Amino acid sequence: MAALREGELARDIAADVAAGRRSAEAVAREALARIAAYDAVQPQAWIERPTPAAVLARARAVDAQVAAGEVLPLAGAPFAVKDNLDVAGLPTTAACPAFAYRPERTAEVVARLEAAGAVLMGKTNLDQFATGLVGARSPYGVPACVTNRAYVSGGSSSGSAVAVAAGLVSFALGTDTAGSGRVPAAFNGLIGFKPTKGRWSTRGLVPACRSLDCVTVFTADAADAALVDQVATAFDPEDPFSRRAPAEPPPALPARFRFAVARPDQLRFLGDAESEQLYAGAVRRLAQAGGEPVQVDIEPLLEAARLLYSGPWVAERTAALEDLLRDNPTAIHPVVRAIVQGGAAVSGVETFKGLYALQAFARAAEAIWTAADVLLLPTAPTIYRIAELLAEPFALNANLGLYTNFVNLLDMSAIAVPAGWRGNATGFGVTLIGPAWADGALLDLARRYEEIAPMPDAPAPDTNGKPQTVKLAVVGAHLAGMPLHWQLTSRDARLVARTKTAPVYRLYAMANSQPPKPALIHAGEADGAGIEVEVYDLGVEAFGSFVVEVPAPLAIGSVTLEDGSTVKGFVAEPRAITGAKDITALGGWRAYIAGL
Amino acid sequence: MAALREGELARDIAADVAAGRRSAEAVAREALARIAAYDAVQPQAWIERPTPAAVLARARAVDAQVAAGEVLPLAGAPFAVKDNLDVAGLPTTAACPAFAYRPERTAEVVARLEAAGAVLMGKTNLDQFATGLVGARSPYGVPACVTNRAYVSGGSSSGSAVAVAAGLVSFALGTDTAGSGRVPAAFNGLIGFKPTKGRWSTRGLVPACRSLDCVTVFTADAADAALVDQVATAFDPEDPFSRRAPAEPPPALPARFRFAVARPDQLRFLGDAESEQLYAGAVRRLAQAGGEPVQVDIEPLLEAARLLYSGPWVAERTAALEDLLRDNPTAIHPVVRAIVQGGAAVSGVETFKGLYALQAFARAAEAIWTAADVLLLPTAPTIYRIAELLAEPFALNANLGLYTNFVNLLDMSAIAVPAGWRGNATGFGVTLIGPAWADGALLDLARRYEEIAPMPDAPAPDTNGKPQTVKLAVVGAHLAGMPLHWQLTSRDARLVARTKTAPVYRLYAMANSQPPKPALIHAGEADGAGIEVEVYDLGVEAFGSFVVEVPAPLAIGSVTLEDGSTVKGFVAEPRAITGAKDITALGGWRAYIAGL
Repeated sequence: MAALREGELARDIAADVAAGRRSAEAVAREALARIAAYDAVQPQAWIERPTPAAVLARARAVDAQVAAGEVLPLAGAPFAVKDNLDVAGLPTTAACPAFAYRPERTAEVVARLEAAGAVLMGKTNLDQFATGLVGARSPYGVPACVTNRAYVSGGSSSGSAVAVAAGLVSFALGTDTAGSGRVPAAFNGLIGFKPTKGRWSTRGLVPACRSLDCVTVFTADAADAALVDQVATAFDPEDPFSRRAPAEPPPALPARFRFAVARPDQLRFLGDAESEQLYAGAVRRLAQAGGEPVQVDIEPLLEAARLLYSGPWVAERTAALEDLLRDNPTAIHPVVRAIVQGGAAVSGVETFKGLYALQAFARAAEAIWTAADVLLLPTAPTIYRIAELLAEPFALNANLGLYTNFVNLLDMSAIAVPAGWRGNATGFGVTLIGPAWADGALLDLARRYEEIAPMPDAPAPDTNGKPQTVKLAVVGAHLAGMPLHWQLTSRDARLVARTKTAPVYRLYAMANSQPPKPALIHAGEADGAGIEVEVYDLGVEAFGSFVVEVPAPLAIGSVTLEDGSTVKGFVAEPRAITGAKDITALGGWRAYIAGL
Repeated sequence: MAALREGELARDIAADVAAGRRSAEAVAREALARIAAYDAVQPQAWIERPTPAAVLARARAVDAQVAAGEVLPLAGAPFAVKDNLDVAGLPTTAACPAFAYRPERTAEVVARLEAAGAVLMGKTNLDQFATGLVGARSPYGVPACVTNRAYVSGGSSSGSAVAVAAGLVSFALGTDTAGSGRVPAAFNGLIGFKPTKGRWSTRGLVPACRSLDCVTVFTADAADAALVDQVATAFDPEDPFSRRAPAEPPPALPARFRFAVARPDQLRFLGDAESEQLYAGAVRRLAQAGGEPVQVDIEPLLEAARLLYSGPWVAERTAALEDLLRDNPTAIHPVVRAIVQGGAAVSGVETFKGLYALQAFARAAEAIWTAADVLLLPTAPTIYRIAELLAEPFALNANLGLYTNFVNLLDMSAIAVPAGWRGNATGFGVTLIGPAWADGALLDLARRYEEIAPMPDAPAPDTNGKPQTVKLAVVGAHLAGMPLHWQLTSRDARLVARTKTAPVYRLYAMANSQPPKPALIHAGEADGAGIEVEVYDLGVEAFGSFVVEVPAPLAIGSVTLEDGSTVKGFVAEPRAITGAKDITALGGWRAYIAGL
């Protein structure tokens, strides 16, 4: 589960407001306070906000509606909107001041959410004109990953992801052409739901690639995304790209289902071994949710993805900005300008050939839905530091779209779900991908995936540029109730999970160790098993002092947990097993001690 | 009903062959004889034919299959294929010798028809690369309208339409991007069925605009088109543009239905008053078939149509011929080359803007399906002489696509049906247009439309450049059994219809006329009524001598029939009604005579 605290989910707030336990105004006041506090950390998450007075007036209006008996499914839920969506009364900038205008009408999706009682807190920063997957292409500043601000937030819906991950709002609208609603979700431990093209109206959206653009939502969990989807989904006759849902959309997946995974040789993590392990953990988790993994060939998807920036579709971005490119090109962010200008060289012949190629890839990709019910891929292969990204703005950005660029081109639905945290406290996510109109099935599957315990907690927000706390897995004498547990409690360590390691370890009771202590030895998938551990969260300084006290042959290294995430934890030198007793079959140290 | 004689329809032949009444070989021999005879008239209908020996061997193979008990729905039916569709063993030229190649595989649709027992008689001429609606853009000669060879056959599927209209084959495949499977049907009095894009495989088709191309069929009636559709329809996983039919396609129209017609100010016939009258007749006929006409705004359709040749889609034609344009441009017909080269100047930005415009037109066009079940439009506004067309090859060709160009762009299904003959013996047609996948409903409605008697017979084929016979409507003393009937019988006139005029006439018994004779006076829609007439077909020379004998104040002019067609017939000078008795209420001359 992600950043939002209990009670701050949209459905919790709406239930409380409906029942009179809280007022929308009180909720708004709290949100205003959180936003003000976070302005000290990342003010660049926002481009424009209504005044607090206006927010409170709006919240009181919701309270009045509820008092009058209106049923509002999002009553009082504070939300944010990416600043390429129109909100009447606020400017729309698309992160380009020279482009800004004041719309007369609110974007259709935003209007639907407001009609359902949601309270708009502001408009968020983005990669200019939604071009980018990084968050580093905006004159309004560079939003960073909420849990480690040395790293990019992901983009283009950077500010919206930050607003939810920092707990400022219950949910936030993003948009997604190439992955802009999914990559920032992954990096910040959020749900990023990208509906089927045309399911949510795009009226009132500044186009990036009009034929591909989707409005999306960031939420803390799948149930909140499903609630927003329920409100936002509607055919909009005024939007030429709006589509009517089929009479019988794909149903929810049965208890046992098949999910497609890429052939191992097609999976690239660009050297990020932690991402690779976290992905493997997500595959295991989805298997626990009833899925049987089947390997498929994702080459047609990867080829389709290349069409988006290396093929004709960049001309759509050029088409969207023709006037500005002609009249005031230097007003455009140089990286964005370089991309968008490139589309002017695309010919009509190339465009149609691209459409033919896409059609062929789409046909080839259909084989996936014969082999499996859903496709599971990493959301992004890795993450980059902001400094790295700024030094190489094109290539590294392109890397991040490896597993997202093809989805809209191939008319698929997708939901990015959290899949753990790297040791550097940045989020890793995976995407559940389905054919068009599988939205409901994906939302349901995401919920089932979340229910497979444990979903690792989000690290604490990064408020000074580096992680504030460290997660430590303990396996023996430091477990609760064991002789050395005091070394944790005396350091204010907080238990965050009782879980197991990934099934790749063996556990030994060491010889001649006082008090008795085990050694956790990585044995690989063939010989290993899951071993019971407790995971504690403790301050960095406290952690350092703790490590100082660890006696040989034990050591603090990295331990992979059942969910695929990697935390700091007890490991052992090889000598630890000399004369030791293999107690793997007992499943953990407690059982061994109990049997003594 | 069109050109084919009784017993030559595909379903009649298949029934006979299945029941052993005829052999496929005997049918093939007859077709070969007809084709050989017609070579004296329009050899340019064909580009390539299998040898007679090969055709007969193929027919015997069908006989053997039938003898072995196989059920073949098209057993023995002779058919032709437009020469932009591959047939293994024959070259594919697309009417460009320099482009010709020998395909290894037969186009999927052709293969399905052959598997159903149809016997291929040859490959037909076309506007080169299927670019054109006229039939005049081929180095293999200019096929002409079968019933008046001074006029164009329509294109691009010129030879296929001629082959069916001249009675050479039971049916013929065309293709249709802008109207190529419908315009030639109209000019030659045929059914031209253009299925929904992707309903029939386009594998093995030389592309014109790949995203729009459809394979089509010309038949003598709707039932034969439905039979071919049954065989040809199948999802083809090897064709990226093939589509799966929806589980519940639009059902057949109920007994009472609504059909859309254009606002009168939006209907253009380019000065062709006969076409206008024939269209009005078709509207009346569809009303008699249970339809209620409702006026709609067809401006979005007309605007979409302009995108096809004045907008980016011409770049698809350029894309299809890139190699030839680069390596051997002068091998391309100069008119076609001028068009296809134009696409090179189209930009990707323009292309995407065209796609957006199309999307908006498509949304606007949806209003038609709310207002009505089906849309009835002229297939082409008029027809041109070959000489006129060659003098102005671009503009006149473009005129012919006024009511067809938008159909594939807007993903509609269509069937062109005959709607009578102009006085010059060229065919006029209307098109029933529906949304995607309304194919079955349209085929059914076309059948109902045909059943509204009378469908005018086709004029005799034009074998020397001008009509061989003339249709003459008689209303009084020349009716069968009346005193002057001998003037027809002595000239070998043949009764072709007992029908009524359009409801725009009044009938008067003239004063002092011996024998008693009536005068038929055009009174307009408000005051007119339908008057009983008999229509006779007689040779041109005989007709001339007949006219010589008509006494004043009577004259031979033009008479509009109930079905909207116009034939020669008795009219009268104004003085005819001086002292005459208005007998309109009696409905015809026979009733008046009977009451004397």
